[in-house]
Amino acid sequence: MKIAFIGLGNMGGPMAMNLQKVGHTLSAFDLSKEACNKFAAEGLPIAASAAATLAGAEVVISMLPASQHVEALYLGEGGLMAQIAPGTLVIDSSTIAAATSRKVAEAGARRGVAVIDAPVSGGTGGAIAGTLTLMVGGSEAELERARPVLEKMGANIFHAGAAGAGQTAKICNNMLLGILMIGTSEAIALGVANGLDPKVLSEIMRRSSGGNWALEKYNPLPGVMDNVPSSKGYAGGFGTDLMLKDLGLAQENAAAVRASTPLGGLARNLYAAHSLGGNGALDFSSIIQVLQSQANKQER
Amino acid sequence: MKIAFIGLGNMGGPMAMNLQKVGHTLSAFDLSKEACNKFAAEGLPIAASAAATLAGAEVVISMLPASQHVEALYLGEGGLMAQIAPGTLVIDSSTIAAATSRKVAEAGARRGVAVIDAPVSGGTGGAIAGTLTLMVGGSEAELERARPVLEKMGANIFHAGAAGAGQTAKICNNMLLGILMIGTSEAIALGVANGLDPKVLSEIMRRSSGGNWALEKYNPLPGVMDNVPSSKGYAGGFGTDLMLKDLGLAQENAAAVRASTPLGGLARNLYAAHSLGGNGALDFSSIIQVLQSQANKQER
Amino acid sequence: MKIAFIGLGNMGGPMAMNLQKVGHTLSAFDLSKEACNKFAAEGLPIAASAAATLAGAEVVISMLPASQHVEALYLGEGGLMAQIAPGTLVIDSSTIAAATSRKVAEAGARRGVAVIDAPVSGGTGGAIAGTLTLMVGGSEAELERARPVLEKMGANIFHAGAAGAGQTAKICNNMLLGILMIGTSEAIALGVANGLDPKVLSEIMRRSSGGNWALEKYNPLPGVMDNVPSSKGYAGGFGTDLMLKDLGLAQENAAAVRASTPLGGLARNLYAAHSLGGNGALDFSSIIQVLQSQANKQER
Amino acid sequence: MKIAFIGLGNMGGPMAMNLQKVGHTLSAFDLSKEACNKFAAEGLPIAASAAATLAGAEVVISMLPASQHVEALYLGEGGLMAQIAPGTLVIDSSTIAAATSRKVAEAGARRGVAVIDAPVSGGTGGAIAGTLTLMVGGSEAELERARPVLEKMGANIFHAGAAGAGQTAKICNNMLLGILMIGTSEAIALGVANGLDPKVLSEIMRRSSGGNWALEKYNPLPGVMDNVPSSKGYAGGFGTDLMLKDLGLAQENAAAVRASTPLGGLARNLYAAHSLGGNGALDFSSIIQVLQSQANKQER
Repeated sequence: MKIAFIGLGNMGGPMAMNLQKVGHTLSAFDLSKEACNKFAAEGLPIAASAAATLAGAEVVISMLPASQHVEALYLGEGGLMAQIAPGTLVIDSSTIAAATSRKVAEAGARRGVAVIDAPVSGGTGGAIAGTLTLMVGGSEAELERARPVLEKMGANIFHAGAAGAGQTAKICNNMLLGILMIGTSEAIALGVANGLDPKVLSEIMRRSSGGNWALEKYNPLPGVMDNVPSSKGYAGGFGTDLMLKDLGLAQENAAAVRASTPLGGLARNLYAAHSLGGNGALDFSSIIQVLQSQANKQER
Repeated sequence: MKIAFIGLGNMGGPMAMNLQKVGHTLSAFDLSKEACNKFAAEGLPIAASAAATLAGAEVVISMLPASQHVEALYLGEGGLMAQIAPGTLVIDSSTIAAATSRKVAEAGARRGVAVIDAPVSGGTGGAIAGTLTLMVGGSEAELERARPVLEKMGANIFHAGAAGAGQTAKICNNMLLGILMIGTSEAIALGVANGLDPKVLSEIMRRSSGGNWALEKYNPLPGVMDNVPSSKGYAGGFGTDLMLKDLGLAQENAAAVRASTPLGGLARNLYAAHSLGGNGALDFSSIIQVLQSQANKQER
Repeated sequence: MKIAFIGLGNMGGPMAMNLQKVGHTLSAFDLSKEACNKFAAEGLPIAASAAATLAGAEVVISMLPASQHVEALYLGEGGLMAQIAPGTLVIDSSTIAAATSRKVAEAGARRGVAVIDAPVSGGTGGAIAGTLTLMVGGSEAELERARPVLEKMGANIFHAGAAGAGQTAKICNNMLLGILMIGTSEAIALGVANGLDPKVLSEIMRRSSGGNWALEKYNPLPGVMDNVPSSKGYAGGFGTDLMLKDLGLAQENAAAVRASTPLGGLARNLYAAHSLGGNGALDFSSIIQVLQSQANKQER
Repeated sequence: MKIAFIGLGNMGGPMAMNLQKVGHTLSAFDLSKEACNKFAAEGLPIAASAAATLAGAEVVISMLPASQHVEALYLGEGGLMAQIAPGTLVIDSSTIAAATSRKVAEAGARRGVAVIDAPVSGGTGGAIAGTLTLMVGGSEAELERARPVLEKMGANIFHAGAAGAGQTAKICNNMLLGILMIGTSEAIALGVANGLDPKVLSEIMRRSSGGNWALEKYNPLPGVMDNVPSSKGYAGGFGTDLMLKDLGLAQENAAAVRASTPLGGLARNLYAAHSLGGNGALDFSSIIQVLQSQANKQER
């Protein structure tokens, strides 16, 4: 299948490579010359512009940083949507505002182009291994049409609902994840401040009503679990600034629909403070450092 | 075995009955005449006073509402500790401040009485069925000595650490539970405000990084799960005022050890507002109502 | 002076009337037929469309509900900016995103039209009395050019900085106001729950380091002050939903510039819950009801 | 007048000295040998023990760090209350739990000793200058009896209500102050992140509905005001750990009376994080650092 792929960052690049590996014919582009050169060196065909990727493409995939980039790519003056052939399938895997996803889908509908939003989670590791989770917004038929391609990028595909629903599901999940991570960090830090063994406490809560994904897979305190970011100096994983972006999208969405999310709002603002403190590049589980005494942090 | 049992409330009463059913000889007491009469009618031997339960008791178990009651029972002028025979084992299953548990344990040590704190979770259903979770603070040896009795009251027994550690583990877990429940409620309410199907969204998050006990066993939105309080008008389960009490203990503890628990503190204050709104007797998952529009609530 | 005035809501209508009263020649418009009719009946000349107000206008003033309306008015296809004569002065008094204000100002600069943002505070009472506070973004020269007109709409004119700065100053102030009002409500409710006389406590805090505008002018508890919304059933004043909108703008702005505003975020989410509870039309000082027991509220 | 004075810390020491300066005859004590020596060197008569200060005392004043110290001083085994002559007046100026103040007052009543709580604010500067604010709990008659002494320690004396009300008024005020300071810091930091001049923004908010004590007297951003802690490296003033203590008392009180104080709870937990970050000794206005980027902080 001929696939146009736009956006070759840490996530998009490996996703495009995985599609090429299973035999699809790609034409890719990124505004960053550096990103283009990097994947050209790995054998990915690079086009001269975003528009130039479209020639003959049956599927267009985009993976961009934020709403304004997606809007500019598809909808701006000279945007791609006017140039995409009717009948094409567009998969936008960027994590952006649901409202923007709906706007692109509506523009697609007017032109006879099917558009689904399919934001991913699973980090760069998941992108490289092809084990991402995708949350899809679009019709059942559009999802089924996209499934063969999506299955080469990710391992879990959820149908969240109509256009934009993939975005909403992702920000709901990631808002909850941000809350879980801080809440779990607070409980562990409180136990440790009382002299409890964090491994023992983590195990008790994991098997009790406090059980959650962070205790299961991603303990934030160094030394409790092997092979998680907290035990590797908070390197790798899902960066604080990426969590901050998703929590910001959740608050913008909450403002738009007049929802109340007190813990989600607080989580965003705590992550913002953590980022302002110079920790934006650390894994998001490093938020536990905000709750630990300076002395303990130096000991680590 | 001869067991003195003090505190015959909704939790203590059934716990005492379970111990009697397996063949122990009980002598029980409660300050409430009504509670005494209720369990006397079920065949539980009631003593004339707390002190009167002690005659010949090898084990003393207490299940009281709050720190001040435990302190008054054991340590006040004319408190039981001075009357308990050295060599006796005391199991306090009340959920109270860790500092109070340690004070009672220290008083016990001076008299040669082993004291463990063993607060429970699992609600009145668990108390009746004997499936409670117990979090134990005390030495390994003391726990092993208590285990045969504890196993008749609960199904899961965790050793959290030294005296008071059972209390700390419980408030850490329940603080996390309170956070999970509100966070899960926010995520579902935000999704619903965006038009998502709450069953679909709950299932996506349950299987993703937002996964937690509330999504697994106790969905707060009516209609998503059967046989949970939210689908039974928030009756039964774990009451808002009990969650509020535990979250208050967590904040008192955080103040005592100078810990920082921003989400835990907010959870307490949101549950306090929910209780002030007249919902103290509803199950704690009813907190989702704070995040729903009046109109939606009336529809239910 | 000939003034085009677009937006005749509860604020805009009286502002336009005040300008007419002092002798300016107005041509006004609102998308709502009802609003047009209401002010036509009061003698305000109504044009057939927004564009029709422009004929001969030296100054264009707009007072619209939200960013998207301002963007649509000036910048959309067929937007006014392309039709406004170079040399005209535009005063946008809407409370909107600073980014939108800057976009309009930049479009104005390209056409030779001076644009200032001048959001107001002071409520409908202030709009009618001409005693509003205006926070202005634009150059010093532009402000001086606008001043004679601004002085007919408001009593206090602050120069906050360059284009967009008026908006930023307003959301900073109103975010702080939302925090003050909730914080003051919490302090009073806590005192009352301890048996203190709210008048005595309010007076002590007003004269101490807790002193703030809410204690000075706008006590949230009924009966402490006369002639404030709390003593009139929370009617009039500044509505909960308007405060919610401003707090939402603050959070969107915080997300855009990656600022951390934990209390501001919590304030928004508490106001959102209050609005969802059916209180959106009550004055924003009614937030104290969230912190009072049901029983107390019924007594009032 | 003969005055027994117990507690010669940074606050108590200067308060005792001021009483001696105006001609009272003091007998003072502190558990810290160092504190005793320091004030002995300044001419204050030091007794051999707390009990030894009582000989002939008409008034007993105490200024201790926390509830447990006051409880131990007056009520413990061998506590002072049993040794104070009936008819004596006790003034406890410690900032402690209202419940403890009431307990001491009740013990006093049983012995015929009048006890008032009179916690102070105004910092060490106010203690030295004799310009403290005192918030008094006790009867009108008791306050009038104490007034001549109180007037030598402070400049503003407020009667908050019955026994314990002084404590409640103080924690309500200081909770509100903690909220004001963080809220003001957020508003300023948000404005600065948007490019506004902090002096201009501070002045606009001070004169608008965001006006509060922090903007009036104690701007948290270095360089906006002279002679405030923020412009002196956050030295002096009211330390972060003291604010943390008061906010902790407020949360303990809220738990005891089941009040809801969401911003107050968050303020405590943010100050706790700031203290854990190694800033406990800095003035409490340094909380703005949590909201500033690392880069900005290094520039200062």
